[in-house]
Amino acid sequence: MKLIRHGESGDEKPGLVDARGGLRDLSDHVRDIAGSVLSRETLERLRRIDPESLPLLPPATRLGPCVGGTRNVVAIGLNFTDHAAEIGADIPPEPILFNKAPSCLGGANDRVILPKGSAKTDWEVELALVIGARASYVHANEALSYVAGACICNDVSEREFQMERGGTWAKGKGCPTFGPLGPWLVTLDEIPDLKNLAMWLDVNGTRMQTGSTATMIFDPAQLVAYVSHFMMLEPGDVITTGTPPGVGMARKPPRFLRNGDVMTLGIAGLGTQRQEIVAFDDWTAKVAAGEPTH
Amino acid sequence: MKLIRHGESGDEKPGLVDARGGLRDLSDHVRDIAGSVLSRETLERLRRIDPESLPLLPPATRLGPCVGGTRNVVAIGLNFTDHAAEIGADIPPEPILFNKAPSCLGGANDRVILPKGSAKTDWEVELALVIGARASYVHANEALSYVAGACICNDVSEREFQMERGGTWAKGKGCPTFGPLGPWLVTLDEIPDLKNLAMWLDVNGTRMQTGSTATMIFDPAQLVAYVSHFMMLEPGDVITTGTPPGVGMARKPPRFLRNGDVMTLGIAGLGTQRQEIVAFDDWTAKVAAGEPTH
Repeated sequence: MKLIRHGESGDEKPGLVDARGGLRDLSDHVRDIAGSVLSRETLERLRRIDPESLPLLPPATRLGPCVGGTRNVVAIGLNFTDHAAEIGADIPPEPILFNKAPSCLGGANDRVILPKGSAKTDWEVELALVIGARASYVHANEALSYVAGACICNDVSEREFQMERGGTWAKGKGCPTFGPLGPWLVTLDEIPDLKNLAMWLDVNGTRMQTGSTATMIFDPAQLVAYVSHFMMLEPGDVITTGTPPGVGMARKPPRFLRNGDVMTLGIAGLGTQRQEIVAFDDWTAKVAAGEPTH
Repeated sequence: MKLIRHGESGDEKPGLVDARGGLRDLSDHVRDIAGSVLSRETLERLRRIDPESLPLLPPATRLGPCVGGTRNVVAIGLNFTDHAAEIGADIPPEPILFNKAPSCLGGANDRVILPKGSAKTDWEVELALVIGARASYVHANEALSYVAGACICNDVSEREFQMERGGTWAKGKGCPTFGPLGPWLVTLDEIPDLKNLAMWLDVNGTRMQTGSTATMIFDPAQLVAYVSHFMMLEPGDVITTGTPPGVGMARKPPRFLRNGDVMTLGIAGLGTQRQEIVAFDDWTAKVAAGEPTH
């Protein structure tokens, strides 16, 4: 299944994508794509519903982050051999963890706002895993049974806030709109091989990132197991698994995001995202003028 | 007001502490101490209820974390001049931020479990602020109007996981039970001066930490404002503001927590906490035997 959350920001309803790509509403069946709805049992129940029986939504419906109620967004740093090489970093002996504030999550096609004072906002196409069941001290060989599905996350990052403001990376990773998540949550049964998915990201139509989950240092199952040894993972939590080469800060000269830029990105089988960049002052002007903010 | 959440872990109900220290149930008035209940308006409505009209709870009632639905626990590192001095760290030019996984939050008197393989679990008495209203780019002179109240947080930390396992501090800060929060949430109107509160922590009755919020480098209002420039804060989010001197890793020789140790800690006007330390294997044996796990 491809599960979605549709409607206005903060008030999203559950839905799914039918075989012909139509968006369907699931509000009569579950309250949200969140919490216990992500359990194997409930996903199985949803799978038995005939999508044609569900109300069809207008194609232009806004999609929110494809999972709700997320309390923990754990991100993995330097997890691609080819990305570590491009920034001259050593291959980490064990996964590097950091957090994105859950309030940064947004829809796949929502605008991304450059934070006030930002000069170094950057992109990172990533494979994100959505936890479906409470996981603590799980082993890698059973770890994927705790995962409901996967989706795209653009791990938008402000490099000055992340690396030049002291302390850990948290300051540059959780700014509002820095976590486009979706367009849909693809349940694991529909993904033939998590370890062999092509990934790409364009800025204004120019290819910036090209990669594959095949060059991950630690694979999805290892990451879920590893994180679960340091913290309890809960349904709706997200682990975003690192980015392949081609980020703006590694380009020569570096290329950061500017007002009006458009990012498009995708992962094989998981759909695509498109985000327009808006500078903070332009965004506040839009809000003041009553324009939609996504 | 002193607000509480009482009952079994994961199923806590709202309540408050009356003038004589009795625990009262608020279930007939609000669903939880969480989200919009933390708004100024709802707190004012709760303040007008006569506590004597509320059902009295047994004194031995378990207290959960004093706020529910927390999605973001932001912690501040090295925020006390005297603590920075004891570990030989420079005074940071701006606040150091890191995250605790929200799943680590627990009640003030719940057991603290040593993680599997832990040899360096340590204590940190801290003043925690609970956000009452969405805060983004707020100024320090208005920042406290976004705060519902304050409470004690024991920022339990595994030093090897935090500092010897690569990457940021996340690995040693969010283990299950590493965030006792409470016993109650004291609304700001009942705290005469956030910047002058005595703090202490004992292990097995021996004083380990003695301090005061007066030696904070960045004060509570500055911290809320600062964090809000990097991420949107939401009602129920927690900012824990750093620890005074006397942590185990700074002692000569270092002293870390062992099975059976008891931590007691307090902050003037905010109550006290008491946690018994249980080694991971002892804890799993207790669970298997059906004993209560808090």
